[in-house]
Amino acid sequence: MWRSHLARSLHKHRNQPEARFFQLATIGLDQRPHNRTVVFRGFIEDSDRFKDCLQIITDRRSQKFEQILDNPWAEVCWYFAKTRSQFRIMGKLCLIDAENPSLELQNLRQKSWQSLSDAARIQFAWAHPREKRISENLEIATPAPSLPLADFCLLLLEPIEVDHLELRGNPQNRFLYQRDDQGVWTEIEVNP
Amino acid sequence: MWRSHLARSLHKHRNQPEARFFQLATIGLDQRPHNRTVVFRGFIEDSDRFKDCLQIITDRRSQKFEQILDNPWAEVCWYFAKTRSQFRIMGKLCLIDAENPSLELQNLRQKSWQSLSDAARIQFAWAHPREKRISENLEIATPAPSLPLADFCLLLLEPIEVDHLELRGNPQNRFLYQRDDQGVWTEIEVNP
Repeated sequence: MWRSHLARSLHKHRNQPEARFFQLATIGLDQRPHNRTVVFRGFIEDSDRFKDCLQIITDRRSQKFEQILDNPWAEVCWYFAKTRSQFRIMGKLCLIDAENPSLELQNLRQKSWQSLSDAARIQFAWAHPREKRISENLEIATPAPSLPLADFCLLLLEPIEVDHLELRGNPQNRFLYQRDDQGVWTEIEVNP
Repeated sequence: MWRSHLARSLHKHRNQPEARFFQLATIGLDQRPHNRTVVFRGFIEDSDRFKDCLQIITDRRSQKFEQILDNPWAEVCWYFAKTRSQFRIMGKLCLIDAENPSLELQNLRQKSWQSLSDAARIQFAWAHPREKRISENLEIATPAPSLPLADFCLLLLEPIEVDHLELRGNPQNRFLYQRDDQGVWTEIEVNP
């Protein structure tokens, strides 16, 4: 299954923190594609409902927040330089902000906040992203690790299709994975 | 200007071929975002009309061909690990296939084909991408460098907006660049 191939690539890149960065594409309110680098925060392992979900974090004030509210579809593109493998992971995003009424989801949001570094947490105390630069940021105190700041959101990508390409080989090797409504994955090998 | 910052990142990564890979997001016929890694084939330097255009190549039989015909908007996300800088480059794609009537564009397409390696050219002779895997591919002859194969397309991304983020710094540094109808770029510094 694609998860084991992905785990292998992650393992081979365990000494390169930037291998945990991937590109997340969404559709904007302008109906144009938008694409940015985000950090992979691990899978949700201990939940049947959210099995296979990739965790990402975002700021309520970022443009993608409004984009995802309007259109939850997304595709992650994740390229690993050492193994020369690419994973394209398509699915719907689930946005968990401070107002989310589900206790289970608020617990996940809090756990995610607590697992961050101080350097990651302080970004949620910075001035409004993408507005004209202000310089007062320097005196901001590090937020406490116990409770998430109001603008902190957890983002879950629930994959329904994965396109796995291995550049090594001539021709290259490519596999498509699709998930049905029961959560069962099927795999086919396709031409690269 | 953003081009000089990008040139600096490219220079610092000149020994890492994978630094010339970026992620290209488009919108599918299903109105979902699609995202894949492509290779940067350089800017078009000697043309006033296509100044600042990024060159990419694609196969007529790939899904993005139909996607771009339907909706030419795209955003490139380009992350450089060493400099910890990200460029998000938004604009319209111009698709130059074998049927394109412009002599100037056909010349660009041919030049692009000629500059490819044999390993890149042979991919356009492989079996239909994303169809069930066939194994006859092994006996394919290397295509001649003189004239492009019919499925070879040149893709130009004409940027109108660039979002440049430098992760180094606390807070980080971020700049927005916008191009007006006369082709003049303006820059503002924004909060990260």
